[in-house]
Amino acid sequence: MGRGNRVAGTLEPERIVRLEPDAVVILDQRRLPGEEVELRLRSAAEVAQAIRSLAIRGAPAIGVAAAYGLSLAAARGDDLDAAFERLVSSRPTAVNLRWALEEMREDPTPERARAIHDAEVDRCRRMAEHAAELFRSDSRVLTHCNTGGLATGGYGTALGAIRAAWERGLVERVWVDETRPLLQGARLTAWELESLGIPFEVIADSAAASLMASGQVDLVVTGADRIAANGDTANKIGTYSLAVAARHHEIPFYVVAPTSTLDPATATGAEIPIEERDPAELTPRFAAWNPAFDVTPAELLAAIVTEEGVHRAPYDTTLPRMVHA
Amino acid sequence: MGRGNRVAGTLEPERIVRLEPDAVVILDQRRLPGEEVELRLRSAAEVAQAIRSLAIRGAPAIGVAAAYGLSLAAARGDDLDAAFERLVSSRPTAVNLRWALEEMREDPTPERARAIHDAEVDRCRRMAEHAAELFRSDSRVLTHCNTGGLATGGYGTALGAIRAAWERGLVERVWVDETRPLLQGARLTAWELESLGIPFEVIADSAAASLMASGQVDLVVTGADRIAANGDTANKIGTYSLAVAARHHEIPFYVVAPTSTLDPATATGAEIPIEERDPAELTPRFAAWNPAFDVTPAELLAAIVTEEGVHRAPYDTTLPRMVHA
Repeated sequence: MGRGNRVAGTLEPERIVRLEPDAVVILDQRRLPGEEVELRLRSAAEVAQAIRSLAIRGAPAIGVAAAYGLSLAAARGDDLDAAFERLVSSRPTAVNLRWALEEMREDPTPERARAIHDAEVDRCRRMAEHAAELFRSDSRVLTHCNTGGLATGGYGTALGAIRAAWERGLVERVWVDETRPLLQGARLTAWELESLGIPFEVIADSAAASLMASGQVDLVVTGADRIAANGDTANKIGTYSLAVAARHHEIPFYVVAPTSTLDPATATGAEIPIEERDPAELTPRFAAWNPAFDVTPAELLAAIVTEEGVHRAPYDTTLPRMVHA
Repeated sequence: MGRGNRVAGTLEPERIVRLEPDAVVILDQRRLPGEEVELRLRSAAEVAQAIRSLAIRGAPAIGVAAAYGLSLAAARGDDLDAAFERLVSSRPTAVNLRWALEEMREDPTPERARAIHDAEVDRCRRMAEHAAELFRSDSRVLTHCNTGGLATGGYGTALGAIRAAWERGLVERVWVDETRPLLQGARLTAWELESLGIPFEVIADSAAASLMASGQVDLVVTGADRIAANGDTANKIGTYSLAVAARHHEIPFYVVAPTSTLDPATATGAEIPIEERDPAELTPRFAAWNPAFDVTPAELLAAIVTEEGVHRAPYDTTLPRMVHA
């Protein structure tokens, strides 16, 4: 364990998660932004524990970490079936995790794991380049939750789009929703933007509409956890509130997410189950309703951007059929 | 100092703030909901310090506390001008505070102070009775921030309306916005509702729109800090976001506030200055925009309720001219 090197204006994929000969090394996301501490995970069991404890989170990022974990198990001569089971059960709902582990079981080498990581970064970059086309100059962009390198093990989805637009000189400022109750915006997105040298300010989630009314938001970009066949999008709680406010103020609202998020088997958002989390995350003492996600109807979206391009309504005909993962 | 007595289903004004022969006794709001601790304030200086430190907050409540503080100073034979100055400067922007102190300077007796307190409670009750007419049976009502007995030294404004409707058997459930960044909803409103035995659940501010979409909100009621001549209403940050979401879902949005909140000298909400607070309230480390209030345009309101009745648009002709300072 030790401090990571800060390289001004960069946030390399290797800093989020990488394979060394004797360990999978990750940046401990639980301790950000206060401390930048690396964890050296020396077995598949330790990787699984890091995933379970949210030291690394974000579906693409944990898929990459698990891939490295299985190659580490192979290098150590551990029982691969046992390592697979341990890793795949560390976050049962993450589709990417199972996909990455099944790929690795065929070829449990460091080269294959790094290829999975590289492909994830490449997918993010393509998505971001498409999405950057939607930014005009001097854009003031609002985002929600964390969808950056930390969540993807690389470049990011919605935050990757902001990064690509910033690299083209199109971003004046980023507004970062703090994203209650776990504050992934105020903790993780703010930390990433600071690392990248992109100007930003954190706001309370409830201040976003007021900011829009004052004319200080040109566009909103968020990620997605799952996109139904008709374009209805499930994402972190608060996304729908932003989309309603953006519509009221005639501000375009874009979803940026990989094709692995597309779920053609789900017809509409009404069929997407919404995970409810421990009320204690919100208040230690009182009854609370604490949904992790909400669903934004497709009609509130200006476009959905994947690594395949910019898709507009009607989404049931324009979204890619091909699905990674 | 000691624990207050809990009387199930009640929250008496005397529990929030009262005068005893040798002290002004207040419930320390900084320690709610974890601990119910009374502070015995034995001088005007101690009352002023309690106001400054937010042990008691809410414009009506601090007006009452200051009135008791001046009568205490008179009973002790202290210099009344010095006591007045100390108290009036404890929260310079609170109009009620100066009004109550000027009344008390004319007649610095316990009887006059108690009359100010009684009048405040009476005003809240009248307001609440008018507002309760707007509730239909089995109402699921959403509110924001704290506008109850704690804020008013008595019955409450928006929360008073909910209480009156509950007493009439019209309330099924209250949804309590946690109200970032200072959590007055999750801490104080939740505590009051628990004390009163009214069923409630806390939600993240950003979950309100999603809750509306699911059909679980019948009406929204909030308080106001200042209401312009045209009905535009300044209130705790997040109120505007709720009003936009309520309009999107065709849910009525009501403001409940005393006539002392009306500001006929301010033509529209655009003229209301918005206090920006310390970014550290939101995030200890990063740049942040932390407005305390936002402005909800009159066109998003279904009605404004004062102690004088229920007022509908056009507010410039329907709002009372008479203003209790």
